[in-house]
Amino acid sequence: MRPSIATVSLSGSLTEKLDAAARAGFDGVEIFENDLLASPLTPEEIRARCADLGLGIDLYQPMRDVEAVPEAEFARNLRRARHKFELMRRLGAGTVLVCSSVSPHAVDDDALAAEQLSRLADTARECGVRVAYEALAWGRHVSTYDHAWRIVETAGHPALGTCLDSFHILSRGSDPRGIEDIPGEKIFFLQLADAPLLAMDVLQWSRHYRCFPGQGGFDVAGLVRHVLATGYDGPLSLEVFNDVFRQAEAGPTAVDARRSLLLLQETVGRASLPGPVVPTGVAFAELVTPDAEPLTALLGALGFTRTARHRGKPVTLWEQGDARILVNTGPAGRREGARLAAIGLESPDPAGAARRAEALLAPVLPRRRAAGDAALEAVAAPDGTELFLCATGRPEPAGWRADFAETGRPAPGVGVRGIDHLALTQPWHHFDEAVLFHRGVLGLDARESVDVADPYGLLRSRAVTSADGGVRIVLTVGAAPADDTVHAQHIALATDDVVAAARAFRAAGGALLPVPANYHDDLAARFEFADGELETYRDLGILYDRDAGGVFRHCYTRTVGRVFFELVQRDGGYRGYGAANAPVRLAAQHAVRGLTGG
Amino acid sequence: MRPSIATVSLSGSLTEKLDAAARAGFDGVEIFENDLLASPLTPEEIRARCADLGLGIDLYQPMRDVEAVPEAEFARNLRRARHKFELMRRLGAGTVLVCSSVSPHAVDDDALAAEQLSRLADTARECGVRVAYEALAWGRHVSTYDHAWRIVETAGHPALGTCLDSFHILSRGSDPRGIEDIPGEKIFFLQLADAPLLAMDVLQWSRHYRCFPGQGGFDVAGLVRHVLATGYDGPLSLEVFNDVFRQAEAGPTAVDARRSLLLLQETVGRASLPGPVVPTGVAFAELVTPDAEPLTALLGALGFTRTARHRGKPVTLWEQGDARILVNTGPAGRREGARLAAIGLESPDPAGAARRAEALLAPVLPRRRAAGDAALEAVAAPDGTELFLCATGRPEPAGWRADFAETGRPAPGVGVRGIDHLALTQPWHHFDEAVLFHRGVLGLDARESVDVADPYGLLRSRAVTSADGGVRIVLTVGAAPADDTVHAQHIALATDDVVAAARAFRAAGGALLPVPANYHDDLAARFEFADGELETYRDLGILYDRDAGGVFRHCYTRTVGRVFFELVQRDGGYRGYGAANAPVRLAAQHAVRGLTGG
Repeated sequence: MRPSIATVSLSGSLTEKLDAAARAGFDGVEIFENDLLASPLTPEEIRARCADLGLGIDLYQPMRDVEAVPEAEFARNLRRARHKFELMRRLGAGTVLVCSSVSPHAVDDDALAAEQLSRLADTARECGVRVAYEALAWGRHVSTYDHAWRIVETAGHPALGTCLDSFHILSRGSDPRGIEDIPGEKIFFLQLADAPLLAMDVLQWSRHYRCFPGQGGFDVAGLVRHVLATGYDGPLSLEVFNDVFRQAEAGPTAVDARRSLLLLQETVGRASLPGPVVPTGVAFAELVTPDAEPLTALLGALGFTRTARHRGKPVTLWEQGDARILVNTGPAGRREGARLAAIGLESPDPAGAARRAEALLAPVLPRRRAAGDAALEAVAAPDGTELFLCATGRPEPAGWRADFAETGRPAPGVGVRGIDHLALTQPWHHFDEAVLFHRGVLGLDARESVDVADPYGLLRSRAVTSADGGVRIVLTVGAAPADDTVHAQHIALATDDVVAAARAFRAAGGALLPVPANYHDDLAARFEFADGELETYRDLGILYDRDAGGVFRHCYTRTVGRVFFELVQRDGGYRGYGAANAPVRLAAQHAVRGLTGG
Repeated sequence: MRPSIATVSLSGSLTEKLDAAARAGFDGVEIFENDLLASPLTPEEIRARCADLGLGIDLYQPMRDVEAVPEAEFARNLRRARHKFELMRRLGAGTVLVCSSVSPHAVDDDALAAEQLSRLADTARECGVRVAYEALAWGRHVSTYDHAWRIVETAGHPALGTCLDSFHILSRGSDPRGIEDIPGEKIFFLQLADAPLLAMDVLQWSRHYRCFPGQGGFDVAGLVRHVLATGYDGPLSLEVFNDVFRQAEAGPTAVDARRSLLLLQETVGRASLPGPVVPTGVAFAELVTPDAEPLTALLGALGFTRTARHRGKPVTLWEQGDARILVNTGPAGRREGARLAAIGLESPDPAGAARRAEALLAPVLPRRRAAGDAALEAVAAPDGTELFLCATGRPEPAGWRADFAETGRPAPGVGVRGIDHLALTQPWHHFDEAVLFHRGVLGLDARESVDVADPYGLLRSRAVTSADGGVRIVLTVGAAPADDTVHAQHIALATDDVVAAARAFRAAGGALLPVPANYHDDLAARFEFADGELETYRDLGILYDRDAGGVFRHCYTRTVGRVFFELVQRDGGYRGYGAANAPVRLAAQHAVRGLTGG
């Protein structure tokens, strides 16, 4: 299948859009009229530019309010159409999109619509182009794909076919099975978009909230299967109107788009990608810091022991149970201090996982390793976090630990068993992309998206996890591109006794995030506790949550640079991450920052 | 009436919220539970802080999922309620909000709801507080105000009343006239919010899109009239959940809120403000620039003559027809170069207009004038633009021109008659506030909001005008807080012959914004022109639009600093501002900036 994308889906000037589409591996584009009108390039120059980039111009769009109008108006429309067809000839675009009319002058008369579209197709054929007629979900008289097809069928003109658009079909709740009644050669074009399931005005929904397939709630792949069953073999073209994509840099958006389409092609059996290799656990989290001291003091109080030193780089390994933290003082120091730069994921097949990531356009990182170092596979996530694919403890390939010289043995510490989850703040424009990346590239499952009220704005949060919970990553993004450095990343450490762990941490000189007394007073109103239990939580700043499965107890360290730690005790199958407590935690962190000026 | 505001309407910590509410002149607050839980202050400290600030705690909220549940669950709810009532005693809050249940355990049984609410009210009375029961628009069994009132009436308990919320009532399309059937003393609380008219899920609409009265599409004042007719004399309290306000600074949001409430009080006859004095024209636009040369060269080419010099400051006056531009090189230079800093508005009563502005919390600007200067009234708009209220040409008060010494006489120039409109870019968080300011404070009418596609993101634009078009201001804001310095302000100059004006400008060495040939090719497809007409537009970069009323022709100068000029010819009652052409203009401006690196 030929991957294509509408220029309206990308930000920037027409040339920026074309460059981004070509670099991301698209074969074709739909040229959106406004992009052409605003471009200083002539149609011939645009044609040449596309040819240089290896892009075909698969569609010119849109032509509006053409059909089922009084004859005088139709004559004006035909005149306008002739201009467009001449422009398309100069552009080398063979198909034009005609959207069902929204004009108040249009009449509800399918025979008239068919007759006028047929005359339009006559003119198109003279100019060597063809017309793809599409039902807008909010068309005045024609708003469903089967209705548009009946009109095309009635017209029976070789230069007139239909255009199917997954948004217009699925947003109205139409049954896509009827697509199979259309002969494939009469489907002139297929436009694909997903959207979150919102109950809202369909025009607004379409104009502002579309997203790439796999990022919303529609069964786009199911629809594509019906289209392919007709024998359709034209482009699969993404047409997404989205306020965020309009602002985001075109390059990453185009990569996100192409990845979405590759995953869709895989789902419908039209692309053979290396299969997903789901990670089974977190091998390590790597913190980069200009100054190791505050971080290692914190790790020490948390019961971690420095167990090894990298043989060639200023990296030390800290361990407790199955939790492993690398502290890297190598890269140039940053003013923001410590940050979570890389994650090691245990993989049953690191090379296979890297092949899939590369096939899905994840940047494969150069192996910046000293001679003799283990050749670790690594790719970059959309937020820049480096993901190392590890096979700890297995003889082949050589594990990452082989690069480290042992300097000590892990102590029992405070009872940390391993890493419960990692929380990563995402750049504003790349949240949906990040979720799709973790699902599609790593094979993780995405959980429900939740809103979290920070005192200074709403955040949106979504967990991606492996089925058995061995890998849990919580992706969080602000409601708008405020200063996203405010929101730190964090590492949640699993323990079977958070009270003991918190006490041991404090006894070792660690400072826990203070939680307001009002919060614990409220817990007393909501739950019943054993004698002294609540006082313990109050004393240690432990937060408490329950769901249908079980109980969650958790507390936080102070923040170092952009990183903090959480101690969590997850009992009885509790599935969440304490989102109900996040507003209190965020407010407490703002309050501490206010006091320290940090 | 007592003005009050819910803490959830403002951004920040509880203390920041309280400070902002008090500074803006509110008498009371609703304490939102999450704000209390996240605060390090004890209830007693919050109470003391409110007292110091002169704020009463008019409501504590919300209490959820209380009523119409099985007895065992209700017993737990009562236990929880006792904790809350004790907290309210410490806080000094006399009324608690109970929202109609959304619990899956709630049953559809009004008698049970009334019985349990009555027992809740018993407990409340013991603790010295009272319960205000409110129908959430998405309540499981109780979702309309009249239904909630029937339950309260059935319970017949002195400590149980109802809470009315304009959003919950108007979002469901309930008829607010029925409010008059409720005895005023049984309305324990009144919450006010407006919202844009969106067809969307009511819960999402409520949580993210509420706004202050006068900023949306509801008839909030009409509802308040019905409430007042019952004899209700409790607080008028703003409760607004809004993603933008959550991020915006609390201080300006609180002022915006208080202004909205004052205007509402005026509308319902419960506040006597100085009446609106609608400006009749634009006396001048003042540009501040560190370097006068590029600007005065541009003004010269546009046919302006330097006619006067300020007697005490480095300000010159440039005139053509009724268009007057002040060029001020006084204030410290800014790297961004020239900007539109002030607007002089012709006012039939400058002192009266200033009194109204001050009563509506507009900052009144100090008269930073030299001795002997005319004492001009001036206030600041929300975006910081200084608005001078002028009485040009009238003997009293001394006009602003008295401060200027004549240096020349206006020449015919290029045919500019006056200022057609001014376009001001608004800071992201303050768009609705700006519209309400211009309507409420200045008495201008707001037109429909329109979306405009810039290549790098969607903009929103809304005109505020006087009835006769003497004053037209177009407010524009980005769809998100991108770099708003990208979007310049502009001054549109009215002419009866834009072709002649553009030619004269170019002959004088002025550079017009180049418009892509594709745009004019498209005009040929859309409209029929006289011989040579389109070629003229193409040659000069003139854009063309039509509406039901007439025709609009316009072209643009290059940008100097953050300012550019537009020459416009408005024929036959055209009412718009060429929004259809704005994407092409914006793209052309980006292209020029790209070339010059500016």
